Amino acid sequence: MSTTADRQLQLNSQGQLRHFLNINGLDRALLTEILDTADSFASVGEQAVKKVPLLRGKVVANLFFEASTRTRTTFELAAKRLSADVLNINISTSATSKGESLKDMLQNLEAMACDMFVVRHSQSGAPHFIAEHVCPGVAIINAGDGRHAHPTQAMLDMYTIRRHKGQFEGLNVAIVGDVLHSRVARSEIKALNTLGVNEVRVVAPKTLLPTNVESLGVKVFHTMREGLADADVVIMLRLQRERMQTALLPSEKEFYQRYGLSRESLQFAKPDALVMHPGPINRGVEIESEVADGAQSVILNQVNYGIAVRMAVLSMAMSGQVAEKNILQAKR
Amino acid sequence: MSTTADRQLQLNSQGQLRHFLNINGLDRALLTEILDTADSFASVGEQAVKKVPLLRGKVVANLFFEASTRTRTTFELAAKRLSADVLNINISTSATSKGESLKDMLQNLEAMACDMFVVRHSQSGAPHFIAEHVCPGVAIINAGDGRHAHPTQAMLDMYTIRRHKGQFEGLNVAIVGDVLHSRVARSEIKALNTLGVNEVRVVAPKTLLPTNVESLGVKVFHTMREGLADADVVIMLRLQRERMQTALLPSEKEFYQRYGLSRESLQFAKPDALVMHPGPINRGVEIESEVADGAQSVILNQVNYGIAVRMAVLSMAMSGQVAEKNILQAKR
Amino acid sequence: MSTTADRQLQLNSQGQLRHFLNINGLDRALLTEILDTADSFASVGEQAVKKVPLLRGKVVANLFFEASTRTRTTFELAAKRLSADVLNINISTSATSKGESLKDMLQNLEAMACDMFVVRHSQSGAPHFIAEHVCPGVAIINAGDGRHAHPTQAMLDMYTIRRHKGQFEGLNVAIVGDVLHSRVARSEIKALNTLGVNEVRVVAPKTLLPTNVESLGVKVFHTMREGLADADVVIMLRLQRERMQTALLPSEKEFYQRYGLSRESLQFAKPDALVMHPGPINRGVEIESEVADGAQSVILNQVNYGIAVRMAVLSMAMSGQVAEKNILQAKR
Repeated sequence: MSTTADRQLQLNSQGQLRHFLNINGLDRALLTEILDTADSFASVGEQAVKKVPLLRGKVVANLFFEASTRTRTTFELAAKRLSADVLNINISTSATSKGESLKDMLQNLEAMACDMFVVRHSQSGAPHFIAEHVCPGVAIINAGDGRHAHPTQAMLDMYTIRRHKGQFEGLNVAIVGDVLHSRVARSEIKALNTLGVNEVRVVAPKTLLPTNVESLGVKVFHTMREGLADADVVIMLRLQRERMQTALLPSEKEFYQRYGLSRESLQFAKPDALVMHPGPINRGVEIESEVADGAQSVILNQVNYGIAVRMAVLSMAMSGQVAEKNILQAKR
Repeated sequence: MSTTADRQLQLNSQGQLRHFLNINGLDRALLTEILDTADSFASVGEQAVKKVPLLRGKVVANLFFEASTRTRTTFELAAKRLSADVLNINISTSATSKGESLKDMLQNLEAMACDMFVVRHSQSGAPHFIAEHVCPGVAIINAGDGRHAHPTQAMLDMYTIRRHKGQFEGLNVAIVGDVLHSRVARSEIKALNTLGVNEVRVVAPKTLLPTNVESLGVKVFHTMREGLADADVVIMLRLQRERMQTALLPSEKEFYQRYGLSRESLQFAKPDALVMHPGPINRGVEIESEVADGAQSVILNQVNYGIAVRMAVLSMAMSGQVAEKNILQAKR
Repeated sequence: MSTTADRQLQLNSQGQLRHFLNINGLDRALLTEILDTADSFASVGEQAVKKVPLLRGKVVANLFFEASTRTRTTFELAAKRLSADVLNINISTSATSKGESLKDMLQNLEAMACDMFVVRHSQSGAPHFIAEHVCPGVAIINAGDGRHAHPTQAMLDMYTIRRHKGQFEGLNVAIVGDVLHSRVARSEIKALNTLGVNEVRVVAPKTLLPTNVESLGVKVFHTMREGLADADVVIMLRLQRERMQTALLPSEKEFYQRYGLSRESLQFAKPDALVMHPGPINRGVEIESEVADGAQSVILNQVNYGIAVRMAVLSMAMSGQVAEKNILQAKR
């Protein structure tokens, strides 16, 4: 999808967020607004009563066509902290098993007056398709689609970097591992470039990189020594063993020796480099336990910030939809 | 079950609804009260805060022994809009797998002080059995039992007809397709006759009609041309392929040619005839896509009205139970 | 685990409950406080609005590694009556299937700012392990672990006894059946002795008793006639057929004849003896239907009281955690 099309689909006529599908099409000001809004929610989790009434009486439906505890749970928590009602739709037992099409199922859910759908799907582009066909006023949030995008994960990573490094300017960020199968990496590369870091790098064997990866705006490295040199942030990717259908790797052991983040390989980066990972981690496969649990690791902070960032995205998209509805009604 | 027994089980000593199991036994005044109450709730879904506090602090347990996303979700939404707490009891993983009987399970749920059970079961009569054995004060709502009844679906269809046609008097309503396996059809025929339409028709091959179907109060037709002539409402039934154990049909293709609702066959009805379907639809099996999505179709409206109708049934049954309890306490 | 270690883990520096893992380590005053607190909640279930705002804005996560409808549902109801938000984490579909360790999963859940975990696990000691590793401020409640303990079940049984017998002093309590596989029995024996009954008895064949069972503080009997003589309370245990891997019994029929509670064998106890069972009952296996449903049975009362007792444990543990946090902050 073109950047213009991605922009038009995600923003309302005033340039406010109304769906959140992809980092593509969103500019630096909008990504910064998401981070600033998340900041305002970050303290809610520490209050005695962890609630704000922004989405009271709204219905948020979690449509997970792929299983996920972590992402579904943080979206559920984010929606509940905003005082929304949450529906978890179990797709495998749903009417789709009776031969109902995705579009029919969505129209039915819309007819039930849900206000927002959080969608995870194994097919790239499914949330876009839904956003194009959903009726006005209903917001779609992408919770991960195929190999395409995982924009809320990218934004919580941006939030983590800004919170621990202060700004994006001048930072060198290395993304290490299975870039080929990673929707997280695609969204992160776009977000980092939009927010203006100095350099985005990918560190991986050729077999785990997409063709023409440079065109995404990254420098390519094939060794940790070179790729981590002078890095301020090291983002490790999960080795998606379940997605590797062909023998792209000689062996897990060899992969770990060359691309795993160990106490030794972390030395190549700056001494205060952040260690990040979208989770769940494979200890001893792509990251050493001591590093995952070490002083430079912010892996659990990422999970924690994920709630505030998702609260920001949910509340901004809902208000973009409400604003648009009011504009349309005023025009009549 | 006799009409008198059905009436006594469903109504309290003042004639108010206390369980909702079956259209049988309920008179026109009571069905009209359900529709009027649904009217008062229909606007709640359009408010910014979709909540009314009628069932605050009450516990509604969804007991689904048969999977269903659509019906379970609309009941859950209806209960949440009434501010109830909702428990979804997953029966397959429940203690019944440890050999606990249905009756023991229910007594346990009652002991947990649930106020209402919404029950779907593959056995005809299961919700009646439960209503007969549940302790005073607890309301049972039938969400579909075997081939027997699906009374909330019938009532949302009645609501749809009244909302779009203004009244029931003088209407000809054709119900088309697999009447034999349809609990929806049984409940609709009873409701339409109780509410006083001019004529209820069934249109189907003999193999998909119950024996003595005329005794339910319908006229039988075997062609769309005759059955749809002068019809104000056409209700298509889902072809329950998963329930057909024997070869009751020559082929799906032949069924569609003779009993499918296409742009052509819809011409037999009045030009402003409503097209209805309980969903999920089988496009190209019992209904043409263009008709399902066409100007006369109110299929998605049915889903939407379903929430208000279920709110009406839940709140009326709960207040019938509370009223009865107060009467019994006053007598002591 | 030693009694001292159990005490230190479960209590904060002021001696208040902060985790609830095991009856061991808790003294009579603390168990009595739980029962008194449950008393104050017992009436909430009879109010029109079954809610108190004690845990408003807190998140209680149910982590059930073993399926259980009854226990999970009563914990969910208890948490909702305290106005908490409840997350049900389905472990089999969770990230543990991606190879994530229990500890990593918990750290992630903690990072999501959950305030309390209710844990059921097939491994003895799992909730203790979690309590030892969880971050300060988060409470762990044991909902049953292996053959080890089921302390909330024991406390609801204590509540039932106190409510129906007035006090513990002077009572003879017989626990009958498969003590070997029963975590309930272990917790009950400890609680009964701590609360000061006259005599705790176990009645079972040798093959269904742990070695050195006397060391738990019980008298051992092998016949109902002797074991029930002069008993004030008879607690029947479920015959855990699914856990019996070896032929510990000649036959179910013979077991029932010797150790089943029938109208005949109940005659051996005092005429006003209470009949109790943790459920779900096996009718005709360890208890006769007429006895389970008879005048002396308080089996369904146990279920009902379970909600108030779990409300007591949840709210006490949460306030023990909050108090400790305030003390630690004041010290800084």
